[in-house]
Amino acid sequence: MATDLLSNTFAALADPTRRAILSRLAAGEASVTELAEPFDMTLPAVSKHLKVLERAGLIARGREAQWRPCRLQAAPLKDVDEWVERYRRFWEESFDRLDEYLTQLQEEEKKNDAAE
Amino acid sequence: MATDLLSNTFAALADPTRRAILSRLAAGEASVTELAEPFDMTLPAVSKHLKVLERAGLIARGREAQWRPCRLQAAPLKDVDEWVERYRRFWEESFDRLDEYLTQLQEEEKKNDAAE
Repeated sequence: MATDLLSNTFAALADPTRRAILSRLAAGEASVTELAEPFDMTLPAVSKHLKVLERAGLIARGREAQWRPCRLQAAPLKDVDEWVERYRRFWEESFDRLDEYLTQLQEEEKKNDAAE
Repeated sequence: MATDLLSNTFAALADPTRRAILSRLAAGEASVTELAEPFDMTLPAVSKHLKVLERAGLIARGREAQWRPCRLQAAPLKDVDEWVERYRRFWEESFDRLDEYLTQLQEEEKKNDAAE
């Protein structure tokens, strides 16, 4: 099992339901019941996802005994952003190459049209 | 098991060795043997990590039978970047609040010093 913080963050994000929970919490804090509603999931299933998010520091939960609202904590996402930024030039390059290729295709088509 | 692309990408990134392999490939393509060297890992262990990265579309491998160089493919990282960008305001806000808190602490210290 990976134990470094960034690995924990990535592992917590590797699930569409957990990302949907974060997206919901971006709109404001919510209780477990409120979070469970849109997902058609049991409360224990949602609680399990919340524990993963909490361990990764992506959410925090209130201390009130009955209603323990969850709220987003975005600090680990800053680390994800900083990590991925190092690779920006690579995806920008690959899209530049795709652009070049498409421009080349269009020019060849124009030449073919002119030759016809 | 998560099967959506973004979940696959996050799962592939949730391992420090796999992130180190991507970091190495950012410097240029490399063979499995070259990738295995700095990690003190067996070739089968490295191959297993490479398969995870390849399935996530984060690397591509050459077709040469003997030397199948690996190279970085950054397109899935663009999706990670786009996903995480939606949360930028949250970590920027939390750092703003920390800034405010530190400024407040300093002002209180100044007041205390002046009062002494």
